[in-house]
Amino acid sequence: LTLIRCRHSDLFDQKTFSSSTPQPANPAAVSVGALPPRVYVGHSIYKGKAALTVTPRPPEFAPLDSGAFKISREGYVLLQFAPAIASRQYDWNRKQVFSLSVVEMGSVISLGTRESCEFFHDPLKGKSDEGKVRKVLKLEPLPDGSGHFFNLSVQNKIVNIDENIYIPVTKAELAVLSSIFNFIMPYPLGWHTFANSVNPEYSSGVNNANPRYGGDYEWNR
Amino acid sequence: LTLIRCRHSDLFDQKTFSSSTPQPANPAAVSVGALPPRVYVGHSIYKGKAALTVTPRPPEFAPLDSGAFKISREGYVLLQFAPAIASRQYDWNRKQVFSLSVVEMGSVISLGTRESCEFFHDPLKGKSDEGKVRKVLKLEPLPDGSGHFFNLSVQNKIVNIDENIYIPVTKAELAVLSSIFNFIMPYPLGWHTFANSVNPEYSSGVNNANPRYGGDYEWNR
Amino acid sequence: LTLIRCRHSDLFDQKTFSSSTPQPANPAAVSVGALPPRVYVGHSIYKGKAALTVTPRPPEFAPLDSGAFKISREGYVLLQFAPAIASRQYDWNRKQVFSLSVVEMGSVISLGTRESCEFFHDPLKGKSDEGKVRKVLKLEPLPDGSGHFFNLSVQNKIVNIDENIYIPVTKAELAVLSSIFNFIMPYPLGWHTFANSVNPEYSSGVNNANPRYGGDYEWNR
Amino acid sequence: LTLIRCRHSDLFDQKTFSSSTPQPANPAAVSVGALPPRVYVGHSIYKGKAALTVTPRPPEFAPLDSGAFKISREGYVLLQFAPAIASRQYDWNRKQVFSLSVVEMGSVISLGTRESCEFFHDPLKGKSDEGKVRKVLKLEPLPDGSGHFFNLSVQNKIVNIDENIYIPVTKAELAVLSSIFNFIMPYPLGWHTFANSVNPEYSSGVNNANPRYGGDYEWNR
Repeated sequence: LTLIRCRHSDLFDQKTFSSSTPQPANPAAVSVGALPPRVYVGHSIYKGKAALTVTPRPPEFAPLDSGAFKISREGYVLLQFAPAIASRQYDWNRKQVFSLSVVEMGSVISLGTRESCEFFHDPLKGKSDEGKVRKVLKLEPLPDGSGHFFNLSVQNKIVNIDENIYIPVTKAELAVLSSIFNFIMPYPLGWHTFANSVNPEYSSGVNNANPRYGGDYEWNR
Repeated sequence: LTLIRCRHSDLFDQKTFSSSTPQPANPAAVSVGALPPRVYVGHSIYKGKAALTVTPRPPEFAPLDSGAFKISREGYVLLQFAPAIASRQYDWNRKQVFSLSVVEMGSVISLGTRESCEFFHDPLKGKSDEGKVRKVLKLEPLPDGSGHFFNLSVQNKIVNIDENIYIPVTKAELAVLSSIFNFIMPYPLGWHTFANSVNPEYSSGVNNANPRYGGDYEWNR
Repeated sequence: LTLIRCRHSDLFDQKTFSSSTPQPANPAAVSVGALPPRVYVGHSIYKGKAALTVTPRPPEFAPLDSGAFKISREGYVLLQFAPAIASRQYDWNRKQVFSLSVVEMGSVISLGTRESCEFFHDPLKGKSDEGKVRKVLKLEPLPDGSGHFFNLSVQNKIVNIDENIYIPVTKAELAVLSSIFNFIMPYPLGWHTFANSVNPEYSSGVNNANPRYGGDYEWNR
Repeated sequence: LTLIRCRHSDLFDQKTFSSSTPQPANPAAVSVGALPPRVYVGHSIYKGKAALTVTPRPPEFAPLDSGAFKISREGYVLLQFAPAIASRQYDWNRKQVFSLSVVEMGSVISLGTRESCEFFHDPLKGKSDEGKVRKVLKLEPLPDGSGHFFNLSVQNKIVNIDENIYIPVTKAELAVLSSIFNFIMPYPLGWHTFANSVNPEYSSGVNNANPRYGGDYEWNR
């Protein structure tokens, strides 16, 4: 039998700390006309030596000549790590960030209790400074199996930074991340726009009438 | 092979009892103008010695100067436990409540068949009466592996209460809780507002035009 | 290693048979004014000796004096079993039905590969004819572990029926049932109405202003 | 312990390649009047020897005399496989396609790490050329347990094609497929239209008033 202990103080901390988190810089949505109001969302894990804030980022849409859109860039989830400077205080000026792609979210979701995973990013890949910034995010099981260490190391030769931030994430906290990653996954890919379009008014008869359909359609019965 | 038996009477009980549950005190939504009607929702488990009702609670939103909003307090799920006083009758005046946070929902979702978990709350933490009320919710596997005991113990030194309520929750009932916790999780965190905002009209071109974006953006390709 | 074989003919059968399924009797929604059009939905599994059709049923809402609503009866999923009378023909006049409650859906979702489960229903429980109709739905693992048998037996002493319908359900088909049960679960419980109500316009400031809130609220910070 | 390595170049590749993917041929939705804009969605996996693009396809709705609709054909997910012709270049003119049904998605979702599965399609089944085209999609575990091979073989005796395309899919990529298949599953079946219809305005009192309801209703309490 495994026993998991969670203290209410963890919860309390979140509220205490919320005023010391970085000012929200990016609205989840931009209010235009009759659009719903902007809401800044995130999810934070506060621990003794570091804090981790997770924020969803939308895909980018590009208009096509036809008036339709395609996804020109997939959305992702931004991980922001800040080291602690005192009890319950974090230095967001020294934060390091890591953009978790959809497939990397898939790695987190499918991570077994005793499994590790490791992601390598070069934010300047394909640019002249390629290789000068190296980010590695490692997820490693805690020795007692109660969760995983998230370890972000950033080596930036341009501004001479070599930072390492560790934060332990419990099994329950990882379950929350998995649940919200699973919830959010269709949105960075834009698949929710497909979901929204499936109804009789769009689809009834249209498939047959529109010669565009059926081109690579497997069954022409 | 494991055999799970469920009798229809369980279902029947729910309906019989529904009139004896506490009057709903909190609408899930407040109807304003053209808003959809308020609906009181919950989910109840009725057993021989106690009943458990689970109710979702929304986050609180705080307006920012910009007109946008942030989540000022995460939502949660309220667990209400009432002891039985006679066959199929529960004493809701003696009910004890426990607010399950998002991370605690994560614990429930990720709870293995043979695992226990334990949550400690002090509702007065940070106040002058800190420590005078102590709530402990334990989830412990039933000896035959057919589910978990939910055990809420409340010690309240202010009004001199020392209450212990036990209710067995079957594997199937826990699967329902996990499913609805998983469904509800984005809402206490406000992540559904992100989901609602992802569409071409919001996002196309806006990210590049708005200097607010990109500040802590990892890839500036 | 396990090998799962699925032939395309299964798919083809579904289409061939769809005209022989019972005429839809219950729209998923009733079209009123600007409401979206009614759509009849279901999901069918066709096998050599029987067919099984699964249809979601909504909860019933009851108005309260305040203008709000409560769930007066949970929704469910209707299982309809029909025996085969010839190759690819099913006798829907001899169909037997079984209403799967939310908790019973939970049993199906959490059913292990080697586990059984059994549900007993007496549709006349609490009436004068209680005990005269007895329905038992058993889910038992197939000997080779490739899925489960669904076995519905109905004994009706009023009309002197004693019917037994078996249908094998593969692991993949059970995964589809689990996925759609998991999707549908909030709706019979009405929790989606909570989800729809969580937004800044409903929630901002309202919780504090409304004395109804906070009555059984654990933390009054 | 298992270690999963993912390089950022994978991500980068997706963007580089996106211009070389086939021109979108089928909008997810057709814009009519005030309908939301069309968005082309998909999800691609690019590897050394092949690329795989996954696209959701809606069900077809057929109008009934009553003004309601039924699903006349379930939706599916289209898999498009293209062989590589050079480093990071794929020959979409030689692509082979495979339509994954809802139950086949169920197979993918429930596929164990060490399990295989195999799907056989004859797109001309029931036609005069039945048997002349044979498609087999195999999912087989990679020897090191890090994912599965997707292997599509197409034998077309009409145009004399015998093509075999292999692409390795990591555990994380399969988790993404499972997540989006799980998300999308209600839509090909039309069950989301049920979900959309569950609210007090549709349901309150209607069930009792409408004689259509209750016909095959198990409990008439």
